[in-house]
Amino acid sequence: MKNTQRPSAMPVHKYRPYHEQLRVDLPDRTWPDARITEAPRWCAVDLRDGNQALIDPMSPERKRVMFDLLVSMGYKEIEVGFPSASQTDFDFVRHLIDDNVIPDDVTIQVLTQAREHLIARTYEAIAGAKQAIVHLYNSTSVLQRDVVFRTDKQGIIDIALEGARLCREFEKRIPETQVFYEYSPESYTGTELEFAADICNQVIEVFEPTPDRKVIINLPSTVEMSSPNVYADSIEWMSRHLNHRENIIISLHPHNDRGTAIAAAELGYMAGADRIEGCLFGNGERTGNVDLVALGINMFTQGIDPQIDFSDIDQVKRTVEYCNQLPVPERSPWAGDLVFTAFSGSHQDAIKKGFEAMAATAAEKGVTVDEIEWAVPYLPVDPKDLGRSYEAVIRVNSQSGKGGVAYLLKTDHAIDLPRKLQIEFSGVVQAKTDAEGGEVTSEQIWNIFTDEYLPADDADARWGRFELLGTETRSDMSGAVSLDVVLRDDDERQTASAQGNGPVAAFVEILRGQGFDITVYDYVEHALSSGGDAQAAAYVELQVGDQRLWGVGIDSDISTASLKAIVSGVNRSIRSRDRELASV
Amino acid sequence: MKNTQRPSAMPVHKYRPYHEQLRVDLPDRTWPDARITEAPRWCAVDLRDGNQALIDPMSPERKRVMFDLLVSMGYKEIEVGFPSASQTDFDFVRHLIDDNVIPDDVTIQVLTQAREHLIARTYEAIAGAKQAIVHLYNSTSVLQRDVVFRTDKQGIIDIALEGARLCREFEKRIPETQVFYEYSPESYTGTELEFAADICNQVIEVFEPTPDRKVIINLPSTVEMSSPNVYADSIEWMSRHLNHRENIIISLHPHNDRGTAIAAAELGYMAGADRIEGCLFGNGERTGNVDLVALGINMFTQGIDPQIDFSDIDQVKRTVEYCNQLPVPERSPWAGDLVFTAFSGSHQDAIKKGFEAMAATAAEKGVTVDEIEWAVPYLPVDPKDLGRSYEAVIRVNSQSGKGGVAYLLKTDHAIDLPRKLQIEFSGVVQAKTDAEGGEVTSEQIWNIFTDEYLPADDADARWGRFELLGTETRSDMSGAVSLDVVLRDDDERQTASAQGNGPVAAFVEILRGQGFDITVYDYVEHALSSGGDAQAAAYVELQVGDQRLWGVGIDSDISTASLKAIVSGVNRSIRSRDRELASV
Repeated sequence: MKNTQRPSAMPVHKYRPYHEQLRVDLPDRTWPDARITEAPRWCAVDLRDGNQALIDPMSPERKRVMFDLLVSMGYKEIEVGFPSASQTDFDFVRHLIDDNVIPDDVTIQVLTQAREHLIARTYEAIAGAKQAIVHLYNSTSVLQRDVVFRTDKQGIIDIALEGARLCREFEKRIPETQVFYEYSPESYTGTELEFAADICNQVIEVFEPTPDRKVIINLPSTVEMSSPNVYADSIEWMSRHLNHRENIIISLHPHNDRGTAIAAAELGYMAGADRIEGCLFGNGERTGNVDLVALGINMFTQGIDPQIDFSDIDQVKRTVEYCNQLPVPERSPWAGDLVFTAFSGSHQDAIKKGFEAMAATAAEKGVTVDEIEWAVPYLPVDPKDLGRSYEAVIRVNSQSGKGGVAYLLKTDHAIDLPRKLQIEFSGVVQAKTDAEGGEVTSEQIWNIFTDEYLPADDADARWGRFELLGTETRSDMSGAVSLDVVLRDDDERQTASAQGNGPVAAFVEILRGQGFDITVYDYVEHALSSGGDAQAAAYVELQVGDQRLWGVGIDSDISTASLKAIVSGVNRSIRSRDRELASV
Repeated sequence: MKNTQRPSAMPVHKYRPYHEQLRVDLPDRTWPDARITEAPRWCAVDLRDGNQALIDPMSPERKRVMFDLLVSMGYKEIEVGFPSASQTDFDFVRHLIDDNVIPDDVTIQVLTQAREHLIARTYEAIAGAKQAIVHLYNSTSVLQRDVVFRTDKQGIIDIALEGARLCREFEKRIPETQVFYEYSPESYTGTELEFAADICNQVIEVFEPTPDRKVIINLPSTVEMSSPNVYADSIEWMSRHLNHRENIIISLHPHNDRGTAIAAAELGYMAGADRIEGCLFGNGERTGNVDLVALGINMFTQGIDPQIDFSDIDQVKRTVEYCNQLPVPERSPWAGDLVFTAFSGSHQDAIKKGFEAMAATAAEKGVTVDEIEWAVPYLPVDPKDLGRSYEAVIRVNSQSGKGGVAYLLKTDHAIDLPRKLQIEFSGVVQAKTDAEGGEVTSEQIWNIFTDEYLPADDADARWGRFELLGTETRSDMSGAVSLDVVLRDDDERQTASAQGNGPVAAFVEILRGQGFDITVYDYVEHALSSGGDAQAAAYVELQVGDQRLWGVGIDSDISTASLKAIVSGVNRSIRSRDRELASV
């Protein structure tokens, strides 16, 4: 069997391999035999490196939401901005300090270039904090020396040392704040190792590390330029060549240009690093910083406490999506919408047998399944430990062979279901078609969809307990909205009113008043492109009591559509509870 | 500086580290010193493993588009389905063979379990192909033996050998087809290495490898269970323990549960593998298969020809998004919308200096910049080599500190710009506000947006050459749509008609008739949630001649909105050309 691959026309002559640019030789490396046994010190840089890479930088309000999230998850070192480069960052750091937002055991970190007026401004920003890490950087790579700074190695060392000395000067002006130091030879992966060690060692002398006041040396793959084993070799090399190693905290800051940042962080940590900087879900410049969620949960699946709380990963995801205004991809490790789905029959069968075997083992031992070792094929973690659930997705092909359920709804009815609702609805279709065999027509799918989520056309049909008969919304532009609704509740006509920051929030208040414990988890809307009189579809993911489920509403008014979607979800919840009661 | 991290409440007691489950000891490993010097044999499994993980499996038409894309990029081994498990897959394989779709130098691959009726059906599927790889698998892991198959090692070996022998039998029935073999000990990463080698070696004996008919041994991380160096160790161990090694092609099939599949593929390849199976942009079960795009372009940036054509990565991305009905994430390596953006001023400055230095070097040498080594900070590859361009994104904060341009358009005007249009518009805002300094109000942003993309309210104002005065669309439900439009072209009123598979396609035809070379690259629409009379916004990315740019249309009819968006793009293109001419 011959290999018939042919040369491409890609201009490979423009690129030189990494090992021809920089030498990283470590034949006696020890890291491949090392094992990770405990969590590193984490530093979350979402508010600086992450925020810096958003088309829409976070507003102060979104920044605060991110800060509070990071604190609540257990991060103790948080880079909160580049205050000398941005007034917004400066104001945010002042807000954290002046309004006493920072818990005693959390240390904020601020970035600064090695220039006097920026350093001065940085110390203004942190004055009054109990403690803070000043993160000083300058660029050291061959390319940046040649092209950007047009100076030799000594010129680059002078910039770093001058910056470090200025820091020590300014530190005296804020004696109430305990200042720690981090130095980054920026563009480290493009720097000769000998030079990187030399400049770090000279900066270390200025910062005078002690056991109580260790100095952080951060070795960023500002641009990821090689496979992760080479980065690990470089970290082990640096660990051997840094002076006062016992008082140095080696920090990693991997970017993901080659898609191997998670591996670079893990191998670099095995190679002797003590600390890892990254962002939740890998936000950051270009392809992002290393993903702190993946790193933490990777450790968790090895029985190592990440010292970070990932027990409600959906909540973390929603908050990060709100702050970054960027979606977390469907296949993002441990957190994407499709991560705990199984589509193939053989996978589903194996998973089912895994759950059964665990139940049997637990019963034998007289303990709960949560007390025994997790062992289910194709599920490397118990989704429940992350607040998720396993979904067996049975895909239903139409007879026309045109594609699956979601595709037909989209093509024939302009209904574009959110990913998680697709998964839910595939189960509904499966339940209704199991008896008749696998393939269904587009029309059958549409009937099942409308039966399940939308009020029946027939005015006499009783689709659910509630029906929306009328709404009135008032806003005085202050942000609060008043909502009056007329509801059919079984045979009764009711009116109710509430306030909220929008009609959805107000309507949830009204239903809470009726005794429903409701939270809105997700909300998506779009126009239906089918015809002149544009209708809108709204989809809401609700928690109703102990049930998590979706509702759908369609209306020419998008606001009404969203209220109808909530009614749909609540009615579905009541129907399924009634069915459960009936089957007892 | 103390580490104040605290234990979390995560139930770590449920998980046992990989090295306590399985032993992979290779202290004399050689792979960390190896270097990748040429492309592996690639096998694209988008049509099988990728398709199997879609909520909406590909229709036959989408499958064919994917197959043609893979062929056009240069993939020579393509897994096209699991024909014995799915009638759709069977029909698709027959279509490829019966309609002579497969080029002579391309080998299709089909997956089968080791069961007689499935194997029989598999050979029916491939009969008549010039050549084909039959990919036989059974599950070998400790967990699957215990829980799913409830059999011992010998039982698992018997399944594999019986399957292999049946293959050799059925092979005789289709002498016109040259059959090659691939065997996968599925769930390899959960299998003791000694047992994996044993079962592979016994299967190899049945398949009788020769230099002309090598046997592929595929070692999948069906579930990624360890850091990538451990996977590499296991590959090097297997490479030492497989018999007839010279006639064996070791294949990798890394999944991405821990987010380290790309690293696992690279380190495993360094450890002695010959071949890599994966999917474009990492589609596949759960977190996906390894991303073939990242792997190939990673090699390219090291001066190694991937033997695959990535020169129009946007086209590849659009096609894959169409086939999979899943978006490629914004930060996906080498291909995401945000990968070639620079947001920070210092990065932009360094990139600018890098471009200038390259131009100067090329001028000195009397060659073009494409003939010299690529060396621009923060851009590890020339975006042009992938058909992309570098974008310096200057973010504009509003004075209220409420966030950036896109956020304000969304919050205040319900305009939700696609990512690439956000990038384009940030440049427009920057150009208009440069004179006045960085911060602008939401009102200014809205004025700039409407001036640039939307027709002026003022009826006398001449916003652009074209204006849509009326449309009429007819469809006989056959898929073709007839469109009549009334257009203002400068001062003239024109009517025109065309057909297409939709109004957009028909309208593009009309404009082509007017001499505009137009292609629609991207198309997004949504409802404006601002009030009762729902309006819709449409955004189109157009290629007009040599310009790539966006147009925007707003209308209560979504179809009209999309035509208006095209007019907007064409008018913008004409305006910018006029400006260029004026400045000559």
